[in-house]
Amino acid sequence: MCRKESKAVERKYSVILGNLGNTKDRFCGGYKTNPTTMEMLKQAAAIEYVKGIELVGTWDIDVDNAKEMKRALDDLGLQCVSIIPDLFANKLYWKGAYTSKEAAVRRQAIDYTKQMCDVAEFLGCPTINIWAGQDGYDYLFTADYIQEREYARQALVELAEAYPKLKFALEYKPKEPRTHSYMARLGDTLLLALSTGCDNVGISIDTGHSVVAGENVAEAIAIAGNAGRLFHMHFNDNYAFWDDDMIVGSIHSVPYLEMLYWLDRVQYAGWLSMDQYPYREDAASAIKESIEWLVWFDELQRTHKEELDEVIRSGDPVLMSKTLRQMMAGKEVEVRW
Amino acid sequence: MCRKESKAVERKYSVILGNLGNTKDRFCGGYKTNPTTMEMLKQAAAIEYVKGIELVGTWDIDVDNAKEMKRALDDLGLQCVSIIPDLFANKLYWKGAYTSKEAAVRRQAIDYTKQMCDVAEFLGCPTINIWAGQDGYDYLFTADYIQEREYARQALVELAEAYPKLKFALEYKPKEPRTHSYMARLGDTLLLALSTGCDNVGISIDTGHSVVAGENVAEAIAIAGNAGRLFHMHFNDNYAFWDDDMIVGSIHSVPYLEMLYWLDRVQYAGWLSMDQYPYREDAASAIKESIEWLVWFDELQRTHKEELDEVIRSGDPVLMSKTLRQMMAGKEVEVRW
Amino acid sequence: MCRKESKAVERKYSVILGNLGNTKDRFCGGYKTNPTTMEMLKQAAAIEYVKGIELVGTWDIDVDNAKEMKRALDDLGLQCVSIIPDLFANKLYWKGAYTSKEAAVRRQAIDYTKQMCDVAEFLGCPTINIWAGQDGYDYLFTADYIQEREYARQALVELAEAYPKLKFALEYKPKEPRTHSYMARLGDTLLLALSTGCDNVGISIDTGHSVVAGENVAEAIAIAGNAGRLFHMHFNDNYAFWDDDMIVGSIHSVPYLEMLYWLDRVQYAGWLSMDQYPYREDAASAIKESIEWLVWFDELQRTHKEELDEVIRSGDPVLMSKTLRQMMAGKEVEVRW
Amino acid sequence: MCRKESKAVERKYSVILGNLGNTKDRFCGGYKTNPTTMEMLKQAAAIEYVKGIELVGTWDIDVDNAKEMKRALDDLGLQCVSIIPDLFANKLYWKGAYTSKEAAVRRQAIDYTKQMCDVAEFLGCPTINIWAGQDGYDYLFTADYIQEREYARQALVELAEAYPKLKFALEYKPKEPRTHSYMARLGDTLLLALSTGCDNVGISIDTGHSVVAGENVAEAIAIAGNAGRLFHMHFNDNYAFWDDDMIVGSIHSVPYLEMLYWLDRVQYAGWLSMDQYPYREDAASAIKESIEWLVWFDELQRTHKEELDEVIRSGDPVLMSKTLRQMMAGKEVEVRW
Repeated sequence: MCRKESKAVERKYSVILGNLGNTKDRFCGGYKTNPTTMEMLKQAAAIEYVKGIELVGTWDIDVDNAKEMKRALDDLGLQCVSIIPDLFANKLYWKGAYTSKEAAVRRQAIDYTKQMCDVAEFLGCPTINIWAGQDGYDYLFTADYIQEREYARQALVELAEAYPKLKFALEYKPKEPRTHSYMARLGDTLLLALSTGCDNVGISIDTGHSVVAGENVAEAIAIAGNAGRLFHMHFNDNYAFWDDDMIVGSIHSVPYLEMLYWLDRVQYAGWLSMDQYPYREDAASAIKESIEWLVWFDELQRTHKEELDEVIRSGDPVLMSKTLRQMMAGKEVEVRW
Repeated sequence: MCRKESKAVERKYSVILGNLGNTKDRFCGGYKTNPTTMEMLKQAAAIEYVKGIELVGTWDIDVDNAKEMKRALDDLGLQCVSIIPDLFANKLYWKGAYTSKEAAVRRQAIDYTKQMCDVAEFLGCPTINIWAGQDGYDYLFTADYIQEREYARQALVELAEAYPKLKFALEYKPKEPRTHSYMARLGDTLLLALSTGCDNVGISIDTGHSVVAGENVAEAIAIAGNAGRLFHMHFNDNYAFWDDDMIVGSIHSVPYLEMLYWLDRVQYAGWLSMDQYPYREDAASAIKESIEWLVWFDELQRTHKEELDEVIRSGDPVLMSKTLRQMMAGKEVEVRW
Repeated sequence: MCRKESKAVERKYSVILGNLGNTKDRFCGGYKTNPTTMEMLKQAAAIEYVKGIELVGTWDIDVDNAKEMKRALDDLGLQCVSIIPDLFANKLYWKGAYTSKEAAVRRQAIDYTKQMCDVAEFLGCPTINIWAGQDGYDYLFTADYIQEREYARQALVELAEAYPKLKFALEYKPKEPRTHSYMARLGDTLLLALSTGCDNVGISIDTGHSVVAGENVAEAIAIAGNAGRLFHMHFNDNYAFWDDDMIVGSIHSVPYLEMLYWLDRVQYAGWLSMDQYPYREDAASAIKESIEWLVWFDELQRTHKEELDEVIRSGDPVLMSKTLRQMMAGKEVEVRW
Repeated sequence: MCRKESKAVERKYSVILGNLGNTKDRFCGGYKTNPTTMEMLKQAAAIEYVKGIELVGTWDIDVDNAKEMKRALDDLGLQCVSIIPDLFANKLYWKGAYTSKEAAVRRQAIDYTKQMCDVAEFLGCPTINIWAGQDGYDYLFTADYIQEREYARQALVELAEAYPKLKFALEYKPKEPRTHSYMARLGDTLLLALSTGCDNVGISIDTGHSVVAGENVAEAIAIAGNAGRLFHMHFNDNYAFWDDDMIVGSIHSVPYLEMLYWLDRVQYAGWLSMDQYPYREDAASAIKESIEWLVWFDELQRTHKEELDEVIRSGDPVLMSKTLRQMMAGKEVEVRW
C-alpha cells in the first residue's frame, strides 16, 4: 500500500481578491459597482477563516502599488498566497499570451509575468498561479498544436529557471474564454509541467474546472499530489457542464468529502482558496458560505478517517453510501458489510 | 400566489423488480446470475420501506402468470404500482415500437400494451409506465419526425381511450438506447401528453433522465405537477452526463432536498420508486440505501418547510446555502439575511 | 403521410446588427473597438445576400432614433426583420425581467417591450424576438418555478394582446447568463407559447441553443413548424457543449443539410438570421462565411429533394450516409439499397 | 517551426472484426444474429479498401484457433493489425483487470494478455490494443486511485518488457462501462505510457472516445504523434456526448479533415481502423461508408496541403472557413485574406 500516514495538516483558507469585486458577462458589462482594492481587502480580512489572499496582476497589484499592498496586507494580518498574472483580461493577449503566434506578444507575456514574480518575491508570496486563459484556440485548422505547446513549455522553463524559489502552479481549464485551452485537463497539464524539467512547475486544481473536464476531482488531487506537483487549490461548485463558479456545497456533497480526504492522503499543506464568481449575490457572504461547507465536510471526513479508509479498501458502493449517509446525518457510523 | 397548502402526504416507496436481477451492458452479457421472479419478489418485500413493486411486462408479468403474481404479491403484502411494458428489450421493436415505420409493428406494440393494461387492471395496478426506449432514431435524415410523432400520439390516444381508468405515465429520456428519443425531455413529452386530449396521459419523471436532459428535476416536478400530470417518479443518481442509475445521494444532496420539497408543493401523492442499475453491487442493499437517503432528506425538508418557503421567497443564494447547510449539519437554522 | 408539397421558398438572409460590434466576455471587457450603429449598418448592408437586419433594443434602436433608423434602413435597402428587446444587458433585469420577484421590475420589462413593439410597428418590422436571458435562476431553492413561469405567461399574454399584428418569437436557450433559463428548450417554450392562447406567440430557434439543449435542430424545426409556431431562425455553429456562436459549417455539415431540408418541409418562409459572436475575427466576413455555407448546403439539399425523401422513407443509415456523401462530394447520387 | 516534411504515407484501412457481429445493449440482449468468426472474416475481406483486421481476444482468437486463423487470414489476404485482449466482456474482470483489488485477478489479466501476445507474435501482428474497459470505478470513495494506477503501470511494464517487439497501444476512454476509467483521456494515458519507461507502450486514439473526453482529436493526434507514441487509430463519429460509434462523417466533416491532416503532419504510418457499433444497420456497408468518407476527406486535405498550412499559419477563422468550404464544395481554393 502506498498509503502514507496522514498528519492533520491545519487548513488554511484564502480567497481571490477579485471575487469581491464587480461581476460581468458577455452580455451585461457589470452587475455590481466597483469597490477599490483596499475596500475589497478589508472585506476579505473580515471573512471568518480567511487568512490569505490571491491577487490578480495589474488589477490588484503591480510594481507601483507593491509597497502599499505590503503594508495593507500586514496591517490586516493577511498573507498573499499567490499572484495570478493577468493573461486573460488584457486585450493584448486576445489571441494567446505565451502561445501567441507573434513573438513580441510572447515576449511581453513572459516579461510581464516576471514583473509579477518580482512583486511576489517582494511580498513574500510563494506561488504564481498561471491561468493562461487565452492560450488555446477557437476554430479547427487555426493553430499549430505542436509549435504553440512548445512555446508554452519554453515560457515556463524561462520563468521557472529565473525564479527558482517561486512555485509556478498551472491552473488548467478545458475551455472559456477560448473553445479549447492548451492547459486543458490534469493529464496534459501535468505532462507540460514535467516536460519543463523544473521541480517548481506544478498544478493548481480548480475544482470546477476539473469537473467540467469530466474528471473526478479527488482523483485529480491524488494524481497530482502523488507526483509531488499539487501546488494550489481553487474551490467552487457547478452543475458539471460549465464553470459556474458557485458556492461550494450548493449542489454536491460527497465529492467534496472525497476531495478533502484525498488532500489529506497526499498531505497537501497548501491553501484552500475560494474562487467564485458571485454574479448576483453578496460576495463576501458567498465566500464565507463556501468555507463553512468545507469546514463541515472536513470535520466529517477527519473524524471518520479510519472508516473511510476501510470503505475504500472494501470498494463496496453500498458500504460507502451507508457510511457517508450516517456521517452526514450525524448518526453513529458502523462500517460493517 | 399559486402556492397551495402542503399537507404531509405519506411517502410510499417502491422498486422496479428488475433492479434485483442480472445486469449487463453492451460489452458484457451478464455480470450477475439470474434470480427467478419469485426470488426477486421476496428480496424486494424484505427491503425496509418497500411496499410497492413495478413489474416489467413479459420479463416479470404476462397474461399467463398474472394469477400467480397476484397471489404472490398478496402473500408478500406488496402492491403492483405500475407495469412497464417491454418496448425496449424485445428485438421486434429494434427500430421503434409505437413509431415504427412498419404498421404491423406499431399494431403489435399497441396490442401488446393493451394486454399489459388488462393485466394491470386484473392486478389492481393503477399505472402503465410507458418507457418507449426504441421510439426515436440514431442517424440524421432517417426519420420523419412529424409522421412518427403522430404515430406515437395516435397510439397513446388509442390506449388511453381503451383504458380510461388507468393512468399512462410517459417516462421521458433524451437518449439510450437510441441516440435520440421521441419522448426526450419534460416539455416535449408533456406537449405530447396534452395533445392526446386524454386526462389519463401524463408524465413519469426519472430523476436521472431529467438530469441528463439538462433539467433541474425540481423544476420538472413543479411544471408537471402544476399541469396535473405528474403520475409517477423514478429515483436514482448520476454524474449528470449519462443515465448511470446509481444510489440516490451518492453524489448530489441539495437537489434531492429540492425535489422532495417540490413534490410536496405540488401535493404529489404517488409512489417514489427506485430505478437503479446496480451493475456490480448488491441490488437489494443498494435500493435500501437510496430510500434511506430519501428518508433523511425528506425528514430535513419537512422539518424546515417554513424556512425553505422563506428562502425561496428571498431568492438569496447565500441565505439558501446557509439554511441548507445548517439543516444538513443538524444545526439550528436561522433564516435571517 | 403528413408530408406537404414543398414549394421552393426563396431564402432571405439577415444578421443581428450587434454581431458587427465589439465583443467581450466575463474576463475581458472588450476585444474590439465600438463601431457606431450607422457604421455597423453599412457593414451589414455590404455583406452579400444580407437583406434584413435584427436590431437590439436600446443598443441599436429606441424611440429617439427610430426615424433616423428608418431612413438609414431605407437608404441601405435593408428591412428590419426583428427587434430584440434588451432584457439581458440592462442591469435592472439582473435577477429577472418578466419573471422578476419585484412587481415594479416586471412592469418595467413589459412597458419597455411595448415601446419596442411601437418602434417595430413604426419600422414595419414584423417580429419581436424575445430572448429573456435573465429570466431563470442560478441556485436551487431560490425560485418559485410555478409562480415565476406564470409571470412570464402573463407578460406574454399582455404583449401579444396589445400588439396582435406583431409576432412574438420566443428564443429559448437552456442557460447563460443564468445557470437555468425559464425558456430553456423547445418543448417547454412551445408549451409556454401555446399556454398564452395567442396565435402570435411562437418560437425562435437558435441552432446553437438547440444543440446545447441536446436537441436535434431539424427535429425542433419540424415540431415547431408543424405546430405553426416557427416564427424565426438564428444560425451559428458550436462544439455541442456551449453556445460558442461560431461560423456555420465550421464544425458540422450534415446537421445543417437536415435543418434546411426540414425548413422546406414545414414551408418556413421567414428569415435565416445569422447570430454569431465573432470574438476575435472580422465580423462581417465571418457572417458572410456562414451564409455561404448555408447557400451551398441549400443548393445541395434542394437539388436532391427526392433522394432525401427516399432516404428518410427508408430509415437506412447506410443509404443516408452514401447519399449525403455523394451529394457533398459532387458525385452522382444513386439512392439504391 | 517543428513542422516536418510530410511524405504521402499510403493509407491502410482495417476493421475490428467484432463490428460485423451481433450487437446488444444493456436492455436488449441481441439485435442481430451471431455470424461465425469465419463468416465475419469473409465479410471483412470483401469490404473495399480493407486490408487489415483487429481481432478481439477470446471472442475471435485464442491459443486454440491461432493456426486456423493464420491460414484464414493468409487465404483472404488480410493482415492481423492488432489483437484486443478481452478485458471488458469477461465477467472475471467485472471490478477491474490490471487494477483489480484482488491480486489473483490482476495476475490472471496479465497472464491472459501474455497469451494474446504469444498469439500476436505467431500471427505476425505488431500491436496489442489495450482497452481496459473495466479498469476504473463507479462510485466515489470506492477506489485507491494511487494504488490502482500503480497496479496498471506495473502490469504494463511487465508486458512491455516481456514482449519488446510488440507495441502496446493504450486505448483511452473517459467512461463506459465504468463511470470513470483509469485510462481516461490522452494526457493521463500518455503520462501512464511514459511512466513505464518502455518505448513500446503508447497510445491508441479512438476518435469517438477523444471527442467524449472533450478533446479536439486532431490536437490529441498532434500531441501523441509528437511524443512518438501514436501507435494506433480507431475511427467513428458521434454527437459529442457519448460513444455512439457511428459512421464517420455522418455528423461531422471539418474535424475529420483536420485529423487526417495532422496524421500526415506527425507522419503516422499506422492503420486507420474502423471501430463502429452498427446496432441496427448492415455492418459491412456501414464500415465501408466510413472508409469512403475518409477517402474523400483525405483526398481533399492532401490535395490542398499548402493552402491548409497557410491557413494554420494565419490563424484566421474566416480564411479557414472559406478554404474548407471551397475545398469541400469542389471550388477553386484561393487562400487570400
